[in-house]
Amino acid sequence: MKQLKQQVYEANMDLPRYGLVTFTWGNVSAIDRERQLVVIKPSGVAYQNMNVEDMVTVNLRGEVVEGHYKPSSDTATHLELYRRYEQLGGIVHTHSTYATAWAQAGMPVPALGTTHADYFAGDILCTRALTGDEVNSEYECNTGKVIIETVGDVNPLYTPGIVVYQHGPFSWGKSADEAVHNAVVMEEVAKMAWIACSINPHIRPIDNYLLNKHFLRKHGPNAYYGQT
Amino acid sequence: MKQLKQQVYEANMDLPRYGLVTFTWGNVSAIDRERQLVVIKPSGVAYQNMNVEDMVTVNLRGEVVEGHYKPSSDTATHLELYRRYEQLGGIVHTHSTYATAWAQAGMPVPALGTTHADYFAGDILCTRALTGDEVNSEYECNTGKVIIETVGDVNPLYTPGIVVYQHGPFSWGKSADEAVHNAVVMEEVAKMAWIACSINPHIRPIDNYLLNKHFLRKHGPNAYYGQT
Amino acid sequence: MKQLKQQVYEANMDLPRYGLVTFTWGNVSAIDRERQLVVIKPSGVAYQNMNVEDMVTVNLRGEVVEGHYKPSSDTATHLELYRRYEQLGGIVHTHSTYATAWAQAGMPVPALGTTHADYFAGDILCTRALTGDEVNSEYECNTGKVIIETVGDVNPLYTPGIVVYQHGPFSWGKSADEAVHNAVVMEEVAKMAWIACSINPHIRPIDNYLLNKHFLRKHGPNAYYGQT
Amino acid sequence: MKQLKQQVYEANMDLPRYGLVTFTWGNVSAIDRERQLVVIKPSGVAYQNMNVEDMVTVNLRGEVVEGHYKPSSDTATHLELYRRYEQLGGIVHTHSTYATAWAQAGMPVPALGTTHADYFAGDILCTRALTGDEVNSEYECNTGKVIIETVGDVNPLYTPGIVVYQHGPFSWGKSADEAVHNAVVMEEVAKMAWIACSINPHIRPIDNYLLNKHFLRKHGPNAYYGQT
Repeated sequence: MKQLKQQVYEANMDLPRYGLVTFTWGNVSAIDRERQLVVIKPSGVAYQNMNVEDMVTVNLRGEVVEGHYKPSSDTATHLELYRRYEQLGGIVHTHSTYATAWAQAGMPVPALGTTHADYFAGDILCTRALTGDEVNSEYECNTGKVIIETVGDVNPLYTPGIVVYQHGPFSWGKSADEAVHNAVVMEEVAKMAWIACSINPHIRPIDNYLLNKHFLRKHGPNAYYGQT
Repeated sequence: MKQLKQQVYEANMDLPRYGLVTFTWGNVSAIDRERQLVVIKPSGVAYQNMNVEDMVTVNLRGEVVEGHYKPSSDTATHLELYRRYEQLGGIVHTHSTYATAWAQAGMPVPALGTTHADYFAGDILCTRALTGDEVNSEYECNTGKVIIETVGDVNPLYTPGIVVYQHGPFSWGKSADEAVHNAVVMEEVAKMAWIACSINPHIRPIDNYLLNKHFLRKHGPNAYYGQT
Repeated sequence: MKQLKQQVYEANMDLPRYGLVTFTWGNVSAIDRERQLVVIKPSGVAYQNMNVEDMVTVNLRGEVVEGHYKPSSDTATHLELYRRYEQLGGIVHTHSTYATAWAQAGMPVPALGTTHADYFAGDILCTRALTGDEVNSEYECNTGKVIIETVGDVNPLYTPGIVVYQHGPFSWGKSADEAVHNAVVMEEVAKMAWIACSINPHIRPIDNYLLNKHFLRKHGPNAYYGQT
Repeated sequence: MKQLKQQVYEANMDLPRYGLVTFTWGNVSAIDRERQLVVIKPSGVAYQNMNVEDMVTVNLRGEVVEGHYKPSSDTATHLELYRRYEQLGGIVHTHSTYATAWAQAGMPVPALGTTHADYFAGDILCTRALTGDEVNSEYECNTGKVIIETVGDVNPLYTPGIVVYQHGPFSWGKSADEAVHNAVVMEEVAKMAWIACSINPHIRPIDNYLLNKHFLRKHGPNAYYGQT
């Protein structure tokens, strides 16, 4: 677990480095699938004062197993996603400016170009609104449920992020580091999509064959981008 | 008072650090409620040349009690607010870009998401225009009065900031440090709200139950965000 | 002249520091009114390689009096303004992003708030288009003439800057340093005005009494902002 | 070739320095016309870990001549352009935010002011969409072909960049360094054009005589900008 705590700590510290968080508005977790334990940022602790030992370890029922702090208030959302999707190794939540603006607008971030298609095999979906009941009881858990309802039965790594209506972005990946990487991508494509739509209100979505080409150039069995 | 001067000095120096001010366009004050004394930035002094000893101490009638400089030209506005609202420990005024743009637009910054709701229990209100008479006589004092007229009889810590029509943002908190924190939040949610409205002109305000949930998750007797 | 060269050098170096220039897209000059000599940036020299000795001294007819480089290609514009307006001690030209966008839009930057009014006693005007003849013969000189035609017979320090149609901003002041200060202000209020107009297409200009109040609070015989 | 590898390495490292790339989203190449060899960035290697020796040398058929890495996945696009246009010494591809937004909008970046005209003798063109066949077979090569189809038979140095539909910008120059310079210019004028069009939806293109004046002031036989 020591290694995982180090990874989660470093991934959390990457959030301010990439300009994704103001104050404490974000958290990263990662899971050890063998031991069924999740390491996550403590709640409301400032990044500049945080160190590896402050990370909190919880089991999949949300009980603290190790750590002197309370875990992130969003822990239940992370756990819901880990329980549902075996493919996930790391999860990130932020209030990054542009992705959050799309969440507030209540609209998916449309796939408009190859930058988007290099990472997402379609639009970055926006969840429906939670009901009053869902918010008033087990809110964080229900946030996870509405993400799952929106993602559905596909492989979540094909569109490794989502915006939660009137809230903000969640992203994920095979590791904490990859989840942060995808959070950076979401923020950048959310910014580009806003500007592109502002330039051309009659903009067309990316041609499907171009989207597939770029996604598969980087992912899947015949990928040829990079050194592997 | 030495400690308060140190706090006010540091809070003022945080303004350029957070990118909230250009040149000398901002000021922070704090109050010692027991002694009824307010410490505030000197008028028109550049941040890079300023030190703790340059802070000015005034009483609630605005008379300088200590300090070799004139106090901020906005001192009368701060004092008006301290006299009216016992809850306030610190006040900030800036011309930060996005909050000022909403002030110029003459519109409240609408509550559109949880980022906003984590700090403000409703829209960030915009004052009415001052009349010619109010501007020509005791302008800074009247700026305080119109803020009070807009905030009304509620606890001002529930919406810890406002935009003054055609002027810019004021924010506040239990301390100088908290007031600066809220100034950063206002600027960020003002930016997000602009972009969200630009993405979706038919945007809906945040669902009321979601707003309450987030505000109360961080504030009030049953708060569960953070470590306390 | 050594002191003036130092001032002009430092004022030029401030342009990249304030984020006002990309590459070599800007220049600052200052005038010694007694000797009728102007010091200006050399043409097309990169800021990071420039030193005090590279500044070029010209007389008011544009002849190089001292310096091993050719003066800025915009020198004739600067000289035209110095000859017409005795009040000017320093002039700045940049292609800063937001002010240039207004120049390209062919519209004055409207006075919308007190940030603007603290420095400009009205809109930041936009010149008319130059004619083909004016561009094809003595272009830089005619750029100065069209600025003068637009500013007219008022004290140019009351609105210390302008945008030249389809080109970009010029600003000025009593010294090179003050001219750079005003270039920073123009860029910031140009950005704020764009955002404010985007938030509210039916925006109203700043109330006249508020504009006067703020301008005179900082300028003129009864100014009370700052320490003097 | 050692010198060229050094130049290509440094030009690649300039991309993150100028804020043009996120992660590995960009590449620079340069050609040695005598030896008919091209040096280019390796595919998917992070800038912070890259050194001169990692650059890859290929011949004009795309065969690796030297280097321990695979060349950029966009190599075929670069080669297509070098084969067609003898004037090109360096080529850059990025996903820089504003230029990419115009590519996604599917519109040329219009020539609106002198900042643009100092480098581009007309609009920055946008290619047509590639067909499904062109994407599914020899995609990168066809990207080069559609750029050539759009640029046509003119001297490509007169408009040293283009945006590829739903993809992003390519720029070029007489050297790798000049190509990077033009990539910075494209990004800046793309940003300015977006803002200017947002300020004034009825904006007019730059007057033709002003465009020619500025382009020729910096380029061509009678250029008088700079020190040569």
